[in-house]
Amino acid sequence: MLKDKFRLQIPGPTPIPPRVQQAMSRPMVGHRDPDCSRLVRDLSLRLAPVFGTRNPVLLLAGSGTSALEAAAVNTLSREDEAAVVVTGAFGDRFANILSSMEVTLRRLDIPWGTSCSPEELTAFLKNYPRVKTVFLTYCETSTGVLNPVRELAAVVREQTDALTVVDGVSCIGGVPAGVEDWGIDILVSGSQKALMLPAGLAFAAISDKAWKQIEANPHPRFYLDFRKYRNSLQNATTPFTPTVSLLFGLEEVLNMIEEEGLEATFARHRLMRDMIRAGMRALGLALLTDDRDASPTVTAVRGGDSWSAEALGKELRRLGLRVAGGQQHLKGEIFRIGHMGYADPLDMLTAITAIEVALARLGAPVEPGAGTKAAEEELIHVSSADL
Amino acid sequence: MLKDKFRLQIPGPTPIPPRVQQAMSRPMVGHRDPDCSRLVRDLSLRLAPVFGTRNPVLLLAGSGTSALEAAAVNTLSREDEAAVVVTGAFGDRFANILSSMEVTLRRLDIPWGTSCSPEELTAFLKNYPRVKTVFLTYCETSTGVLNPVRELAAVVREQTDALTVVDGVSCIGGVPAGVEDWGIDILVSGSQKALMLPAGLAFAAISDKAWKQIEANPHPRFYLDFRKYRNSLQNATTPFTPTVSLLFGLEEVLNMIEEEGLEATFARHRLMRDMIRAGMRALGLALLTDDRDASPTVTAVRGGDSWSAEALGKELRRLGLRVAGGQQHLKGEIFRIGHMGYADPLDMLTAITAIEVALARLGAPVEPGAGTKAAEEELIHVSSADL
Repeated sequence: MLKDKFRLQIPGPTPIPPRVQQAMSRPMVGHRDPDCSRLVRDLSLRLAPVFGTRNPVLLLAGSGTSALEAAAVNTLSREDEAAVVVTGAFGDRFANILSSMEVTLRRLDIPWGTSCSPEELTAFLKNYPRVKTVFLTYCETSTGVLNPVRELAAVVREQTDALTVVDGVSCIGGVPAGVEDWGIDILVSGSQKALMLPAGLAFAAISDKAWKQIEANPHPRFYLDFRKYRNSLQNATTPFTPTVSLLFGLEEVLNMIEEEGLEATFARHRLMRDMIRAGMRALGLALLTDDRDASPTVTAVRGGDSWSAEALGKELRRLGLRVAGGQQHLKGEIFRIGHMGYADPLDMLTAITAIEVALARLGAPVEPGAGTKAAEEELIHVSSADL
Repeated sequence: MLKDKFRLQIPGPTPIPPRVQQAMSRPMVGHRDPDCSRLVRDLSLRLAPVFGTRNPVLLLAGSGTSALEAAAVNTLSREDEAAVVVTGAFGDRFANILSSMEVTLRRLDIPWGTSCSPEELTAFLKNYPRVKTVFLTYCETSTGVLNPVRELAAVVREQTDALTVVDGVSCIGGVPAGVEDWGIDILVSGSQKALMLPAGLAFAAISDKAWKQIEANPHPRFYLDFRKYRNSLQNATTPFTPTVSLLFGLEEVLNMIEEEGLEATFARHRLMRDMIRAGMRALGLALLTDDRDASPTVTAVRGGDSWSAEALGKELRRLGLRVAGGQQHLKGEIFRIGHMGYADPLDMLTAITAIEVALARLGAPVEPGAGTKAAEEELIHVSSADL
């Protein structure tokens, strides 16, 4: 078979659209050149609706984790009290970052595969009214849970004076978001998920309330100091060398999102989620999360009695489809299908047919075509205007 | 939805593999540069197994039709007698070329959708023992018929002293071929089908017997004069400016074919054909051709009672899949699915699911998932070594 042909259906990095790849191949420009300044200024503004913020979005050269750490070191210092809601491996990442800072860490652990409810957060924060920052994960990549961050941010406002920091890495661009309107203070993300770019560009949307705490925060920081980014942005530049090719690509990504329309983009992601879930259910496979908690961008599915998630992943790879395995204690227990960014309903049907074939090849008791049929039904009834 | 994302499943041009696209983006070189000479010499030799010939393959800058016309003008002149077997639009193309040359044209018309049998050709050639060249189509793109050119070439040898010219445009690279071993004298093809390149490069494999007739043929010709190409090739060059970027790409195409292996490449094409046919049949759709005549590279399917092939094509386009319609009197009657070149079994499943969804959206009485299931069965039982 064609060894180099495959469908990348993992929860990031995601496929790069050809027109974005082409844009990234534009001739290099200097990062202090007026062409680059125009890009930095325009992109910061054009990202604002995607993040649901009224302020320009800051652009950092770094992985998503750089923005997570930036949110921590800009809002907290040694001996401050911070709360983190851990619903999976990336909430845990936030906790690890905070542990490295010698802050007093209050940790709310939720079983993996479940979202944190407003009631749980309310009960938890009652014990810690003096926390300065509360860290939430919007989409927990490791489980496919979408936490109700709007409701959770409201709880933070009611119970404390803390800032709400949200990790939006694996969903921003695929789901609605709000900073000021949702009571979120810092929303960070990365380039390699629903934003359809290679990794290397990180984003931070910051509320006015957050800026006050950032200004006053004495924690030592240099590369990740949000103030430097804001000050440079006022001169249409970045404090350190920006990822110029990724900025070329981001311009094209924003063209694509604006052409499709944000609401239509979100609807496409919900449809893909519904197709995958219908398909997996019809095959008798167990989904890790309830419908209520299911992210439009990634779905985790449990292995079966007679087949392991790992064996399935290997067989799918052979057929030309790449999915992800589980992380930490879910390693070997689940497989994860990414459905964000440059993905469409036919990609979901391809993934489901591949899973049907792979399971049959592993001798699993599935009915070929049954999952496909269920997923097709979701697509058949979409109005033509929405295609 | 993502307006610029689509699967190109027409019978050519076919999708360009990313590594071929990258190869074509290499910095341009002069066409009399030693780098280009090395390419011309290497590619002519490396193409030989793909065409099943012992001679180097000639490289022409032109569409497939340029090579069809070259085969005619190099082997026939005014008032010569020529035979053409017409099984569809591209056999008809050969006839049109011959008509432009004032040769005496003997035409064997076979109903579209059916191959020419050795018996039919024997009976036909009995009447015309003095034809100088017989023109055959290997895969008839307009119907998806694969003519038994090996058997037909044997008939030509038995009945006449004519050369056998074969149009292999829409199948070479996806099916076995033989020049000397099959008794074929000229086998021509183009770049934009199973050879996974953009259009613009045409090929001719020529037997020693054909060279004798070519040398002696007085027909006026310049750009399409095979002798010029052979003479230039002896100096590792081309008589006229070659398509340098396409040569860069062809080098990578041949790397891919050699990595996969020719036999494995052919097996993949047969599997794709069998999957599409099983899928269409399970949906109750009527195939234009019998199994015996079915090409591994393209399949034609008739429209239904309650839906037109044209409406289906439009709906598929909306869903992100592009198929082709019918040509000449089959326009509106059929749709055609290309399955050659950079295509794999999962692409077939994608196409079938899309057809199921599109037919259901058109209100056609199909059972979603039924076609997919049948096609999956073909793939489920492929041995792991062959994946």
